[in-house]
Amino acid sequence: MHRNGNSVRLRLDIGYDGTDFHGWAAQPGLRTVQGELESALAVVLRLSEQFVALTVGGRTDAGVHARGQVAHIDVPHELADGLTERRLNGVLRRGAPDIAVHAVREVPSVFDARFSALRRRYEYRVRDPRVRRDPLTARFTADVSRPIDPALLQVASDELLGLNDFTSFCKAREGATAIRELIQFDWSRADDGVFVARLEADAYCHSMVRSLVGAVVATASGRIGITELVELREARARTSRFTVMPAHGLSLEEISYPADADLAARAALTRAKRDPLEN
Amino acid sequence: MHRNGNSVRLRLDIGYDGTDFHGWAAQPGLRTVQGELESALAVVLRLSEQFVALTVGGRTDAGVHARGQVAHIDVPHELADGLTERRLNGVLRRGAPDIAVHAVREVPSVFDARFSALRRRYEYRVRDPRVRRDPLTARFTADVSRPIDPALLQVASDELLGLNDFTSFCKAREGATAIRELIQFDWSRADDGVFVARLEADAYCHSMVRSLVGAVVATASGRIGITELVELREARARTSRFTVMPAHGLSLEEISYPADADLAARAALTRAKRDPLEN
Repeated sequence: MHRNGNSVRLRLDIGYDGTDFHGWAAQPGLRTVQGELESALAVVLRLSEQFVALTVGGRTDAGVHARGQVAHIDVPHELADGLTERRLNGVLRRGAPDIAVHAVREVPSVFDARFSALRRRYEYRVRDPRVRRDPLTARFTADVSRPIDPALLQVASDELLGLNDFTSFCKAREGATAIRELIQFDWSRADDGVFVARLEADAYCHSMVRSLVGAVVATASGRIGITELVELREARARTSRFTVMPAHGLSLEEISYPADADLAARAALTRAKRDPLEN
Repeated sequence: MHRNGNSVRLRLDIGYDGTDFHGWAAQPGLRTVQGELESALAVVLRLSEQFVALTVGGRTDAGVHARGQVAHIDVPHELADGLTERRLNGVLRRGAPDIAVHAVREVPSVFDARFSALRRRYEYRVRDPRVRRDPLTARFTADVSRPIDPALLQVASDELLGLNDFTSFCKAREGATAIRELIQFDWSRADDGVFVARLEADAYCHSMVRSLVGAVVATASGRIGITELVELREARARTSRFTVMPAHGLSLEEISYPADADLAARAALTRAKRDPLEN
């Protein structure tokens, strides 16, 4: 972690429409959220882009949206006051109106957008054929072809809660553990009838939210039974019995952090516990 | 009105994201909702486009959205069964995924999407600077720069309710009357904090909803007082004291029609009462 007596750590709270991005992480030649943000930061700070590096709380895949993304950046002390959300949004509005910066504020240097995070909350929106397709929300709502039994959604989700080995719901990554604590997996209906899943966990392995929703939707539309769902979870192996849901139904809604006084302890704990490549 | 013993009248219920359309009404060389829909209908019906003509319940301007648009079309009897929402959406998905057809159904030949309509309901979404800008909903939410006093929104709207001469809120059109009945003009907050106006009237003169919302927002953000708002209404003349709000905050939500038995009487009444160019 970068720490320097002459620099200040700033926290950025960010939202974006992920439709036209190749995900968060900067990639040469591709339009990414990190890439656009770092370009805008370089303009506002009048720095070369090589001196502008964001660390993110929840890396999102291509097409995934965010309303509550968090990142941090270290900037030279004398430049920090000039970095306001107003200036940043002014630059973004021209080149990347699909990104909004909600807040920019100074945080203790021990704050780490990634390693300090306690929990990440996501939402996933699903429309079944009985719900009208609304072109205004189609950018952030996934369609499924089979009717969903609303009662079964919650019954199935409850089977996946708690501290589990989620290997059955992860894209394999060598050497990484898939033990996570799923704290919340609740369903509700939006005003327009769309099914909305709300998931919260300490962290996620790759594609975990979209796999969990895929398994639950398969159960609630009668393709797999509750007993099989539990067996699939216990098998701790990838399966083709359910699919990874599409990216555009998913949005990162909130990342929770400890109070400032507890930040250092939290960061040390997270690093000791888990493969740092996962989040 | 086209009526023919060999044709069947069909009602279409339609939604669209108006962002990428030059409004409802077909215009040569421009992408319009009517144009895209008539093209798709021609494909499904295997007819030349010149034989495909939609009549709409609420013509929307460029950029205005719809969740509850209604149109009718007369099709040869032997082709009617082949015109299903499934086939129509199949064609639209390829060329115009920003349009959805919710339902296609046969109606009495006296049903007229435009002249049978009893009431039209619109929604307008406004974000003030105290509400987070959400890129996911920015396509259908208008921004205003001054903070809005929520209590004043409803007080101001109440002054505009009822049977009024709305000339102060209409783009002038020669020979047309601006007497309309505004039945509802209520405000609520969406989950994300955005202010949502719900307006219902028998009909509207041109740009009336966006002007009414502009006047009320100007009042609720302190630019004009309640007394002046009433004076502006009574003046029955266009004013520059408030602005016509942008198109993209507006959505046509619902058009109400009488029961089948009352359709003929309603159509005759509407035609007698008002300039047929207005709706």
